[in-house]
Amino acid sequence: MAVAGSWWPKDAGTEGMSFMQDIAALEGRALEDWLEEAKPHLAVQRTKHVAPSTLARAMTLISPEKAARIFDLLSPATQSDILQALPPPERARFLERMEPDDRARMLEFVPPEFGRTLLEALSSEERALTRTVLDYPAKSAGRLMSPEFVSLMPEMSAEDALLAIRSGEKRADTVFLMPVCDAEMRLLGAVDLAQIVLAAPSTRISDLSTLDVPFVHVTDDQEDVARLMTSADLMIVPVIEEDGRLVGIVTFDDAMEVLDFENSEDFARAGGTEPIGRPYLSVPVFRLVRSRIVWLSVLAVAASLTVNVLDAFEETLESVVTLALFIPLLIGIGGNAGAQSATTIVRALAVEDVKPGDILAIAWRETRTGFVMGLLVSVFAYAILALIFDPSIALVVAVTLVFICTLAALVGAVMPVAAKVLSIDPAVFSAPFVTTIVDASGLLIYFLVARVILGV
Amino acid sequence: MAVAGSWWPKDAGTEGMSFMQDIAALEGRALEDWLEEAKPHLAVQRTKHVAPSTLARAMTLISPEKAARIFDLLSPATQSDILQALPPPERARFLERMEPDDRARMLEFVPPEFGRTLLEALSSEERALTRTVLDYPAKSAGRLMSPEFVSLMPEMSAEDALLAIRSGEKRADTVFLMPVCDAEMRLLGAVDLAQIVLAAPSTRISDLSTLDVPFVHVTDDQEDVARLMTSADLMIVPVIEEDGRLVGIVTFDDAMEVLDFENSEDFARAGGTEPIGRPYLSVPVFRLVRSRIVWLSVLAVAASLTVNVLDAFEETLESVVTLALFIPLLIGIGGNAGAQSATTIVRALAVEDVKPGDILAIAWRETRTGFVMGLLVSVFAYAILALIFDPSIALVVAVTLVFICTLAALVGAVMPVAAKVLSIDPAVFSAPFVTTIVDASGLLIYFLVARVILGV
Repeated sequence: MAVAGSWWPKDAGTEGMSFMQDIAALEGRALEDWLEEAKPHLAVQRTKHVAPSTLARAMTLISPEKAARIFDLLSPATQSDILQALPPPERARFLERMEPDDRARMLEFVPPEFGRTLLEALSSEERALTRTVLDYPAKSAGRLMSPEFVSLMPEMSAEDALLAIRSGEKRADTVFLMPVCDAEMRLLGAVDLAQIVLAAPSTRISDLSTLDVPFVHVTDDQEDVARLMTSADLMIVPVIEEDGRLVGIVTFDDAMEVLDFENSEDFARAGGTEPIGRPYLSVPVFRLVRSRIVWLSVLAVAASLTVNVLDAFEETLESVVTLALFIPLLIGIGGNAGAQSATTIVRALAVEDVKPGDILAIAWRETRTGFVMGLLVSVFAYAILALIFDPSIALVVAVTLVFICTLAALVGAVMPVAAKVLSIDPAVFSAPFVTTIVDASGLLIYFLVARVILGV
Repeated sequence: MAVAGSWWPKDAGTEGMSFMQDIAALEGRALEDWLEEAKPHLAVQRTKHVAPSTLARAMTLISPEKAARIFDLLSPATQSDILQALPPPERARFLERMEPDDRARMLEFVPPEFGRTLLEALSSEERALTRTVLDYPAKSAGRLMSPEFVSLMPEMSAEDALLAIRSGEKRADTVFLMPVCDAEMRLLGAVDLAQIVLAAPSTRISDLSTLDVPFVHVTDDQEDVARLMTSADLMIVPVIEEDGRLVGIVTFDDAMEVLDFENSEDFARAGGTEPIGRPYLSVPVFRLVRSRIVWLSVLAVAASLTVNVLDAFEETLESVVTLALFIPLLIGIGGNAGAQSATTIVRALAVEDVKPGDILAIAWRETRTGFVMGLLVSVFAYAILALIFDPSIALVVAVTLVFICTLAALVGAVMPVAAKVLSIDPAVFSAPFVTTIVDASGLLIYFLVARVILGV
């Protein structure tokens, strides 16, 4: 949103401003030429293909103004990687220009000792602003907010307000919607810049303000804040302290960044990995392994339960080896049914369509959904299997499918809700965990059903 | 962002405005009382628990102003459900007040015949605006944009510009960043309201404007537009026609809504379901079944390949029944490794960290990642299994794990990229499909390895 220049070329057409056209011309150029010549947003795209140390070097070779604009648009993790790779003078230059809230988020990705070095390199004013934000817990509204903002008083006239805004030295994008406060900085409401501009100059701010303005507390979770802003279409939300004092505002771009981060995290965890937090092609292979090996091992240990179940039924298996043929099919279908239900509920929890208190309603819906699906799939399976295999085997598979699908849907729905109650990220206990649990219990059901129907 | 009232109570404290406190007082009240008394954002939360027909009835019982504010915040699918449940006079009232772009999005969810009835019920002005948007393809920037906006001319003074803004009857939230156009409505740049307000009254708009303003074309994909806005921190983005004329603007709240929708869709598909588009508890069970049964059946058919593979190796299985014990473990680990890699790549494609052209780089990274993980897991597995079972069986399992993990990571990464190339949503070919493919090919590897090592 920064204003890039104030000149006006005579022949500026839309072609000259396009975001897309200039990529081809840059193909094959050195990284620093790319960064210097491409629009900041395109330059950021290019940075996704290089290691942080390479990127850091290129950033020192381009104009400081352009480098700062690109740096602003990078993810906090990538910003931290670059600062760690830069020599101290360049490092201080980037660091000093960051917004306090962006700086605080970046600091979460550096080792504590290095974080202290960074803070000491700051001017005292910026250090104090950063400390204000850092005093709040990680992932809180206090960490997310900008501690610099313009606020107005109710008794001001529209004209006074415009003068007050003009005299301020604040960033332009924090004045679109301004909080209105009393002398003790207690939040009274909010007024938007357009309303002030549209009003007669003598109109009082109190007559232009909205009263039922949503606000959040410093300790509220950043994801809740971002969700509130999306669901209520808010451009900014004021952040207040315990005592009711206004201490900052969260802007829509920070909210979008939080949602992007949380969505990536949920998505990764629902697939049994940890998010890497950096562009895929910019990280070394060992980091990919690190983001996956823990979950893969934990799931492997949990899956070893299936060996025990099969071991217990080895005699049944030996007498009817045909039963083994359907093991992957049955646990595959069960796993998919469980993953479907887990995915639906993890997302519903994330977007606040459901709350942990709805657990009984959820369990009942999923039991019915799973049962209906199991019935449909089993009719279909029986019809085909009875033609090829022994009808009694077909019956075993069909009956097992009804049980497995019902169980899978139920377990898939209840596990994420239970995780939420225990303050664990529901996405962690979704598809891969549910599949693993359904594998073992599905096998148990299969062999019990087989024993009853086949009499073995 | 609408201004709710212009009165100012003497004792308005922060408590009175809180978003959170008034829920308890409303617990147990009738739906319509809830909707009337709660803040719009909270009222929307409450609507998530009721069927559309019930909600539609309640909406007719509350004040039209409050009903309209709540209606605005509902998802397009829910809006369409409510309009279908309302009697014609109330229906026309809600419909007429919608923004043209919101109306066009809602119309995607109604049957075509009913859609025509809705359009005919509109005033001619609103109908024309809606048609403008509907003329562009679904999910395009043209559909997403607001065709009503304020634009300025470069030769205007700041004072003239403020007068022009004041004289307009446009929505306040479209004037924060305004496009600057020539007489033929060709986009020249953009200027933000704060810059105009902060400038001396005689400053020319051309001196306040940003030139390298990102813009998009009417036919661009809505997800690309929303991603551009997030990654470049844009509050609005101008939309231009083929001939360079400015025809609308996309605002940040629409971008947030698109990303929310696309994230829900990716998340659902990565879990093998279709998104339901409505709050989980507001839909009947048959709709949940409908969103899942197709994928579950398709995956079940694909999984039946495992029966064929096992059938082909029935003799091997009969001679060494112990081999059956490790089937679920092996395909479980393979499925998880494939899901991890698919999830990582689907997300990387969605946030544009990688492009289809990176396929070779991706395949090479995933092959190495899968191989390293397979090696780590197999060493661990061999150590344990060799103690309990025959060491040669342990060796079969360990060797199979290395092959399966490498294959799974490779397939998991390549399938979503291939889907993207074929213009299929990559999320469709992620975890569940990859798992199913890895199941069948993993079994093949297992028995081939067993034959070689055990000589059966």
